[in-house]
Amino acid sequence: MNDRKNSGTPKDSHYARLRRAHREQAGSGQRPATDLPEGVVRLYGLHTVRAALDNPSRTIRRMLVTRNAAQRLEIGDLSALPFPADLVEPKAIDRLVGADAVHQGVLIEAEARSPKPLSALGDASLVLVLDQVTDPHNVGAIIRSAVAFGADALVTTARHSPAESGVLAKAASGALEHIDHIEVRNLANALEELHEAGFLTVGLDSEGPQLLEDSLEGGKIALVLGAEGKGLRQKTRETVRALARLDMPGAIRSLNVSNAAAVTLYIARKRLAGGS
Amino acid sequence: MNDRKNSGTPKDSHYARLRRAHREQAGSGQRPATDLPEGVVRLYGLHTVRAALDNPSRTIRRMLVTRNAAQRLEIGDLSALPFPADLVEPKAIDRLVGADAVHQGVLIEAEARSPKPLSALGDASLVLVLDQVTDPHNVGAIIRSAVAFGADALVTTARHSPAESGVLAKAASGALEHIDHIEVRNLANALEELHEAGFLTVGLDSEGPQLLEDSLEGGKIALVLGAEGKGLRQKTRETVRALARLDMPGAIRSLNVSNAAAVTLYIARKRLAGGS
Repeated sequence: MNDRKNSGTPKDSHYARLRRAHREQAGSGQRPATDLPEGVVRLYGLHTVRAALDNPSRTIRRMLVTRNAAQRLEIGDLSALPFPADLVEPKAIDRLVGADAVHQGVLIEAEARSPKPLSALGDASLVLVLDQVTDPHNVGAIIRSAVAFGADALVTTARHSPAESGVLAKAASGALEHIDHIEVRNLANALEELHEAGFLTVGLDSEGPQLLEDSLEGGKIALVLGAEGKGLRQKTRETVRALARLDMPGAIRSLNVSNAAAVTLYIARKRLAGGS
Repeated sequence: MNDRKNSGTPKDSHYARLRRAHREQAGSGQRPATDLPEGVVRLYGLHTVRAALDNPSRTIRRMLVTRNAAQRLEIGDLSALPFPADLVEPKAIDRLVGADAVHQGVLIEAEARSPKPLSALGDASLVLVLDQVTDPHNVGAIIRSAVAFGADALVTTARHSPAESGVLAKAASGALEHIDHIEVRNLANALEELHEAGFLTVGLDSEGPQLLEDSLEGGKIALVLGAEGKGLRQKTRETVRALARLDMPGAIRSLNVSNAAAVTLYIARKRLAGGS
């Protein structure tokens, strides 16, 4: 940066442009997150932060908020919050999460939620199980649909699942605070435990022998979805009680995984509510 | 670039890093698309390109493909294709679409499809109308679900809709080639034309007075969805025959727009097929 004084020369403007590009790239990449302590996540966006503020079990360490976003969140007095909160310009948040992130003027640093063990299911009646779905946008949208359709828990594997992150939380639009996240080491074992707890496990598979609507029965349903392209792993396919497909009459017989999850959850919720 | 010979100095490695960052940023940003002629789009990904190859009405100008992708597409002889095709390394495609794009080793430059007027609807029975939904990932996923559930056409406004692009096409996973795209200038006028053509128009609205299932009737249905957050515009709300909501018993009563579209399409398709 020691050529700052030579402004105006073609070479300087060239390097200035490179530096700006480098700053922008660093701002939109992974780098900013690495200076966070282990177990702390940056969450942003109005819905996401509102839901975190309203969640008594979410520990927030600090907030950066613009005047406009504070108004929209109806926070009158920042100093009354039980954590440090700074009034900032939007760019201060851009610098932490990248200019591409739609942060809407508010960011919090909060402790990531600890996933629960399967034994925490309690009297759940609708559970969504993800078999190595990794895209945080998709998993966030899936969590949002799972909460909307009243699923009690999301079960994922400890490996090959996305960690809680700003991108995932933003896609979940606040839903992250409203669903139990259960993490298991071995999915096939977990499915057997679900059977023992009285769940019907149904794996979604575009080549499944039954329609989903015809495969559901009983009062406890666990829906199992695999990643796009790969689908369910062989061991998962062998362990679920049924493999079922969605009825798709069109020229393409597969959906984006979050779209498939939404339709699947809708059908299961309708069945559990007594509808057809 | 005239300091290339001074390799090894700290300053040089600093600028080399900046240049690399700048190249990478340029590769992942908008810049590459601007050297395309008007009306030409870059489409990539195995499903997307396979569907374009199989679509007789899609004009392809050239292809870049890796040896591996050519095998997976079952293209034995590149010179037998009716357009120029080059065997390349993956990086050659990275340079055109950015390293973040999951191109799977194949890219085509093709003529964008021309949107059709509303008069091209023919005997369509299920139509999806988007009121200023602009995110290309969402619109791509919506097109995929629309094709899977057998919608006959997608209606968008000429303004405030995403243009055909690699991102949209990749999210549609080949579905772009299987649905008519109808573009209208004025959505309210288009809805009135749909009424004259015998369609029931139903707008999705989380505060709608009826459940979607209870609002559908007749043999021709046009589903109207607005953008997330904004929802349907006032004029759209006033023009549709019914405003309906999805039954969401959970703590969050909104879905990602593509998830909402998938559930909505599923319900309408079931109704048109004679189910409940």
